[in-house]
Amino acid sequence: MSSCSWRVRTCLNWKGIDYEYCPVNVLEGSQNKEEYSEINPYKFVPTLKIDGVILNQSVAILEYLEETRPEKSLLPKDPYKRALVRSLVQAIAGDIQPLQNLRPLQYIESTGGNKTEWAVYCITHGFEGVEKQLAKASGKYCVGNEVTLADLCLLPQVYNANWFGIDMAKYPLIQRIANDLSELDAFKKAHPQNQIDCPDKEKNKNLRAFI
Amino acid sequence: MSSCSWRVRTCLNWKGIDYEYCPVNVLEGSQNKEEYSEINPYKFVPTLKIDGVILNQSVAILEYLEETRPEKSLLPKDPYKRALVRSLVQAIAGDIQPLQNLRPLQYIESTGGNKTEWAVYCITHGFEGVEKQLAKASGKYCVGNEVTLADLCLLPQVYNANWFGIDMAKYPLIQRIANDLSELDAFKKAHPQNQIDCPDKEKNKNLRAFI
Repeated sequence: MSSCSWRVRTCLNWKGIDYEYCPVNVLEGSQNKEEYSEINPYKFVPTLKIDGVILNQSVAILEYLEETRPEKSLLPKDPYKRALVRSLVQAIAGDIQPLQNLRPLQYIESTGGNKTEWAVYCITHGFEGVEKQLAKASGKYCVGNEVTLADLCLLPQVYNANWFGIDMAKYPLIQRIANDLSELDAFKKAHPQNQIDCPDKEKNKNLRAFI
Repeated sequence: MSSCSWRVRTCLNWKGIDYEYCPVNVLEGSQNKEEYSEINPYKFVPTLKIDGVILNQSVAILEYLEETRPEKSLLPKDPYKRALVRSLVQAIAGDIQPLQNLRPLQYIESTGGNKTEWAVYCITHGFEGVEKQLAKASGKYCVGNEVTLADLCLLPQVYNANWFGIDMAKYPLIQRIANDLSELDAFKKAHPQNQIDCPDKEKNKNLRAFI
């Protein structure tokens, strides 16, 4: 259910790092249990156990994997291009995804607001900036012609956007890049539908990735 | 008015990088003007012009400054400690600050919700995780005994927490570290009150840093 976990799975797949997948049911609130908060004080997924340490926060995990496993790099060498990648990562992982996450949606609903309207507003505002940035930065992928950390964040966010019924025709660059990314094995294997705990789609039409 | 800009000012001060400060009045919506969006597609402050390029997103800017000006480093050498720093950066810059930013508060108010209640909820949830992480990671500062990017994010967030009337006694490590950081020249010089566009406090008691 988690777009943050999806980013990390894609990175592990991309770099060919074998891993064991341990499902945490966030709709049932398993991330709030005391046992889980011992390995993740923020009570969010994902958590990665690796190299004898425990890592939290998807973006911090991506940077760690890039630093310790630089093969099949997901950051350009040029500092400016690295900053472009990271600006897109932050625009998605900081300014869009947390705002349309489970907790804000629940709060808005509890105060009588329309959670879908709110999510559409957040994603629309965020995607306008991302599309404009991509017009300057993108090649085949978000920054140039190589897959970067920005791409790992983009695809799950497009999945969320589709869930909320965003008109993606307004964001042709985002949509085109997402289409291209969807064809890559590392992204396919990381897709929520290909995880062992993915519920039967027919029985669970209302389930989605939102955190 | 911006805690994101505060982070970057602190970094520039810490590394001894001389800079020209150009105010953008976010309460008047100057960040939304077409002219500004040409240098910042996300329509957020800060923007940094440096080395002939234009950089957006505070965390991407901090990483760029660290990579291109590694003197007076703000990241540890050990990959795990770097991940700890970045997890705290993301916990604040991704999971707390964007949720109590101008736009969500305005939306919640527009739907009849209580924006202060919402901000308190977001900061409280976030600070619980940060405090727990600091219990494992901190020394004199957030991660060990050296100032890192995590500290640059922590102090402005504590300022915001105080604004919303959060009971900081629940977060003794956060409060103690914030107190220590407040004594450092780079942080003092970066404080909103010491900027050229800071309004007269007596005349503007309702102004604050929230974005």
